[in-house]
Amino acid sequence: MFLAGFGVVVAMLVANGAHGFNGKVGFMTAFAFLTGGVTSMVAGYVGMMIAVYTNARCTVSAAQGPDAIAWRESFNAAFRGGSVMGFALSGLGLLVMYVLMVIYSWMYAFETEAVELFECIAGFGLGGSAIALFGRVGGGIYTKAADVGADLAGKVVAGIPEDDPRNPATIADNVGDNVGDVAGMGSDLFGSFAEATCAALVIAAQSVDLVSAGWDTVIFPLYISAVGILVCMAVSFVATDFQPVRNEASIERVLKTQLTLSTLGMTLAMYPVCMMYMPDQFYLGSKTYATACIGMSSSKCVSGGAHAAFACIAAGLWGGLLIGFVTEYYTSHSYYPVRELARSTETGAATNIIYGLALGYKSTIVPVGVLAFCVWISFSMMDMYGVAMCALGMLGTLATCLAIDVYGPICDNAGGIAEMAGLPDEVREKTDALDAAGNTTAAIGKGFAIGSAALVALALIAAFVTRCNVLDGGVNLLNPAVFAFLLIGSMLPYWFSAMTMKSVGIAAMEMVKEVKRQFDTIPGLLEGTPGHAPPDHARCIKISTDASLREMVPPAMLVISAPIITGTLFGVEAVTGLLAGGLVSGVQLAISASNTGGAWDNAKKYIEKGGLYIDVPKRERSHADPPEGPFTGAIVRNVDGSPQMISVRQRKGSECHKAAVVGDTVGDPLKDTSGPAVNILMKLSAIISLVFCDFFMSINQGHGLFNLQ
Amino acid sequence: MFLAGFGVVVAMLVANGAHGFNGKVGFMTAFAFLTGGVTSMVAGYVGMMIAVYTNARCTVSAAQGPDAIAWRESFNAAFRGGSVMGFALSGLGLLVMYVLMVIYSWMYAFETEAVELFECIAGFGLGGSAIALFGRVGGGIYTKAADVGADLAGKVVAGIPEDDPRNPATIADNVGDNVGDVAGMGSDLFGSFAEATCAALVIAAQSVDLVSAGWDTVIFPLYISAVGILVCMAVSFVATDFQPVRNEASIERVLKTQLTLSTLGMTLAMYPVCMMYMPDQFYLGSKTYATACIGMSSSKCVSGGAHAAFACIAAGLWGGLLIGFVTEYYTSHSYYPVRELARSTETGAATNIIYGLALGYKSTIVPVGVLAFCVWISFSMMDMYGVAMCALGMLGTLATCLAIDVYGPICDNAGGIAEMAGLPDEVREKTDALDAAGNTTAAIGKGFAIGSAALVALALIAAFVTRCNVLDGGVNLLNPAVFAFLLIGSMLPYWFSAMTMKSVGIAAMEMVKEVKRQFDTIPGLLEGTPGHAPPDHARCIKISTDASLREMVPPAMLVISAPIITGTLFGVEAVTGLLAGGLVSGVQLAISASNTGGAWDNAKKYIEKGGLYIDVPKRERSHADPPEGPFTGAIVRNVDGSPQMISVRQRKGSECHKAAVVGDTVGDPLKDTSGPAVNILMKLSAIISLVFCDFFMSINQGHGLFNLQ
Repeated sequence: MFLAGFGVVVAMLVANGAHGFNGKVGFMTAFAFLTGGVTSMVAGYVGMMIAVYTNARCTVSAAQGPDAIAWRESFNAAFRGGSVMGFALSGLGLLVMYVLMVIYSWMYAFETEAVELFECIAGFGLGGSAIALFGRVGGGIYTKAADVGADLAGKVVAGIPEDDPRNPATIADNVGDNVGDVAGMGSDLFGSFAEATCAALVIAAQSVDLVSAGWDTVIFPLYISAVGILVCMAVSFVATDFQPVRNEASIERVLKTQLTLSTLGMTLAMYPVCMMYMPDQFYLGSKTYATACIGMSSSKCVSGGAHAAFACIAAGLWGGLLIGFVTEYYTSHSYYPVRELARSTETGAATNIIYGLALGYKSTIVPVGVLAFCVWISFSMMDMYGVAMCALGMLGTLATCLAIDVYGPICDNAGGIAEMAGLPDEVREKTDALDAAGNTTAAIGKGFAIGSAALVALALIAAFVTRCNVLDGGVNLLNPAVFAFLLIGSMLPYWFSAMTMKSVGIAAMEMVKEVKRQFDTIPGLLEGTPGHAPPDHARCIKISTDASLREMVPPAMLVISAPIITGTLFGVEAVTGLLAGGLVSGVQLAISASNTGGAWDNAKKYIEKGGLYIDVPKRERSHADPPEGPFTGAIVRNVDGSPQMISVRQRKGSECHKAAVVGDTVGDPLKDTSGPAVNILMKLSAIISLVFCDFFMSINQGHGLFNLQ
Repeated sequence: MFLAGFGVVVAMLVANGAHGFNGKVGFMTAFAFLTGGVTSMVAGYVGMMIAVYTNARCTVSAAQGPDAIAWRESFNAAFRGGSVMGFALSGLGLLVMYVLMVIYSWMYAFETEAVELFECIAGFGLGGSAIALFGRVGGGIYTKAADVGADLAGKVVAGIPEDDPRNPATIADNVGDNVGDVAGMGSDLFGSFAEATCAALVIAAQSVDLVSAGWDTVIFPLYISAVGILVCMAVSFVATDFQPVRNEASIERVLKTQLTLSTLGMTLAMYPVCMMYMPDQFYLGSKTYATACIGMSSSKCVSGGAHAAFACIAAGLWGGLLIGFVTEYYTSHSYYPVRELARSTETGAATNIIYGLALGYKSTIVPVGVLAFCVWISFSMMDMYGVAMCALGMLGTLATCLAIDVYGPICDNAGGIAEMAGLPDEVREKTDALDAAGNTTAAIGKGFAIGSAALVALALIAAFVTRCNVLDGGVNLLNPAVFAFLLIGSMLPYWFSAMTMKSVGIAAMEMVKEVKRQFDTIPGLLEGTPGHAPPDHARCIKISTDASLREMVPPAMLVISAPIITGTLFGVEAVTGLLAGGLVSGVQLAISASNTGGAWDNAKKYIEKGGLYIDVPKRERSHADPPEGPFTGAIVRNVDGSPQMISVRQRKGSECHKAAVVGDTVGDPLKDTSGPAVNILMKLSAIISLVFCDFFMSINQGHGLFNLQ
């Protein structure tokens, strides 16, 4: 419904381009848009179905046979389930896009109308993005409204644990996990893949040299993804067959090996592919290398094209891996930062929050440095085309990343099934161990998603600037409109985050009220009287669904309308400023929000695991104390009057744990709603600008209705 | 010490400029640097002394005579005390700067060497900034280490209130209020004033037309501040004599009237001044208007100069006022946002934190919009010169703003004196009411400080770009180095905030340990035995002092070294990207951090005042209950089984209040340390770049050691 309506609007506005009304361009863009949206939905649907079916398989595998085989089989079931999502998404996306291009090339002759051809294809990326908006923003609100709502309802209203079967919001919470982690992450990364490819194609189509080198050269971006799928497929056998999981300790290592091997394999495989398809010299624009570049030095003049392309792709591949591992360092409780964060709960929730925010801010340093380096190296080598290549390189291991991401919720739900089915404790232990490793690697995936989103957004800005030839002289940072919109653009992620965070709060409150109503009106539910009526799960799910659809409208409108209004009123230079501002400030906000939330989550888990010890004054045994403690008598003192200290392990229910729970709850909307949603803000506003480029150019030659000069 | 050492480094590096070694420039810049630093320190010292003396006067005035006179006299004592700080700071700054310029004009002939003359003067701004670094960053760490430390020590270690006289950290906390609110704010705004003036002078000196129009035209920026002092002085009589405070209700109105009248008065006064001193047509560069602008359209070609200057100044004046009032809307508990925030404590500390963060993010929208509009209008009218004018306009009401800012801590401490001196409750009531109004207007001052810092930073970037002529073609946003450093620059405020927040945490922990040690080793202190030894206040003050000086080194190094390293290695274009990125991302972080913290603070106060009511189920009276409640019997139910609800007021000690206290503690370092410190980051890194411009240009013509093209 939404897709169709939005498609019509896209068609109308795009058709009304710089060269007068052109129904063909409008229709074809809109068709590509619908195709992109439907493909993303199908891939997400397949992934979710497989994930749901695999849950049970994973549980069953964990329950049968000797230990080593149970470890291997349950891991393999979950990992293969995740791989289905990964390969379905990347393979389907690639296939549909290729078919679309072939069909469109019948309408526009490739040799003469490549620009129009690939401009229409850009609608595909927009479609993928629109679904990502639903998946990430709507899905994010859904999952956290259910999660926070169930949590608060249990704690505040009824004083029962959040996953107590009496709590009517638990099922909505479980559904939310699938929506947010499987469909949300999938649609986000699908969007990145589709957009990066479109950006690269649009830029390539502008180059006379690349077009004259032939179809294979122009669609080289698709070869990167194709090689990526093959490499990831080959590498996946390492985990399932060559180096299978045998015990708890090896799970995390196997998953990390997958990522590293995929990156390494892609690097090796891409070198010959680059050599085969990239021409040696070309100019990225409407002149040929010979006329534009003799005696000139410009980043648009590329010589040694194959090596340059390989360098950009390799920078993306390894940059992504590095960002992932740094994210893990800051969010896993195996390392110092999260342990320090757990320790800060000693003085209460407030210090935990302060340390957590500081940790998130600090965690931006290396990823942003890596991104800046990637941008600089690829930009210097192949101008904007290099940035798109770099983004595609980072997405080269997409299938493996997605497999690992989806692996997490599968194991999580497998554990839930084991619990509900009353299977032996050792089964639950296995699924918990599988899940724990999944949590760690999910952090890697999150860092990876943000990093690639930033590069993709920049590639789209690049494609936008390239398409709007008026900016050939460069975009002057010190132009009044550019700087003013740079400021406004960098405010947008804050506005957007405020909206999504508040939305979670509002939806969670509604959930709490409904739970309260059910406890008040269903007799015996709260008291757990045998034979009482079941809680009304469906109504809670409906509240989450309705709230997420309703609450996602304002942030979605902000993302969609900001570039369109800016472009219409103030012109394309202002749009460039807006996009650049949103990108540079959004990256920081997304990274810090995700990592802060992840760190709080794991600090809580670290305490629950019993990792935190706090020094307290040693006390003598008093008469009423149990033999093994804790003792409550007088403090034992040293000769100087200072008390002797002993280390006490902090467990669930301790004051430290309570403080950590506050941090975890604050982190929930940060890490699963507002943080990842900023990815969408960056990418969607950029691709909307790209698709509406011709429309903007039709208004006073791109100077907007106010006709700023 | 630090000043002298830094001065020598400045002299060495500046002397080694583009035209070979030049000891004269280096020495004169260093001398201006020292002068600026010393002036700022003297003004801050005078203000702090006056504030300390005025405390007692304010208390005494509140205690004597009939009510109306006591209100008027105590208000006037505090307001006049604040005014001393305001006028001392702006008057002294202006005078010293003018004298310095006159002296320097003997060494460099104004007519022929205006560029060198005002370049050396820029050292004055750098000196003011260096002291602001101490005042805001060091002072911010000091005050919050003491505050959070005293708070935690009382609560966690001993279970006593934070302001209990047994707590050894209280005196450090009181000292910190003066350091942070009087000296910190003062040095920050002094830095803004000095830097904005220097930026305007440097830009004006580059314009052949303005220099040939004469001395008065070039030093026009000083006239803006001079007129501002006169207007603020005239307006101050409105509060003290024409429309004096008569009762509690009128205090806040009187303070706001001061601000609005100052703004209005400045607007009226500046029009004739602009007409008198600004030439009609000029070109902002090294050509004359006649040669550069005939048939050309550029924002550097100004015609109707007087009106353009007036428009820029007026935009700054009213923009500042608007930002101030929006800040008040988001942080005062008279309006909806803070009341909603207080209500969110119903479901615990976590929702309070989530709503608070969202509120801070949202509060950036209007201020950033206003700033963008100011930048756009002033930039379009008079290029970079207009931005400097706009910043000076915003700082035109500096004296009034500072008076109101300093008024707050004076009333706060007056209340403390009344308490300690055992004066009647009605005295304490008066000082509390004065203080409450001061808190509200202090929020206005904070917004104002951030807004002006952003404009000043942009003006400095503008001056930097103007000085480094190599950038005459504009700074291309889509240059690889520029974009990469735009990303890195926008990461710096996060890194910086992470450092300052952690510093507060570390210093507060040290304070807690010391308090614990004293309780353990001073016999009878904790128990309050009569005749016990007094707590060792001096040691706590020393811990705060040492910690703040030690902990400010890493963030200070970051701010100082980032532009120098970037400029040395990557050249001036990269520096421009770095500064622009830091500015656009820093503004958001500063505004959101300050407002979030202010809102949490006031939400807590709102609950303490008894403003929050929560619906709870109505209960029947049980046998043990007191006659007036609260009742603890069975829940009274409606016919459908749902409970009847009654509204219960939440007070100090309720669960809601406890949740609000967590928010307040988290907000402390945000609003008083890391938020305002970002102001310094933006301004200091920009003026360092400006002062070192010649040094950067001496390395491969401004392309850095890596010689990027």
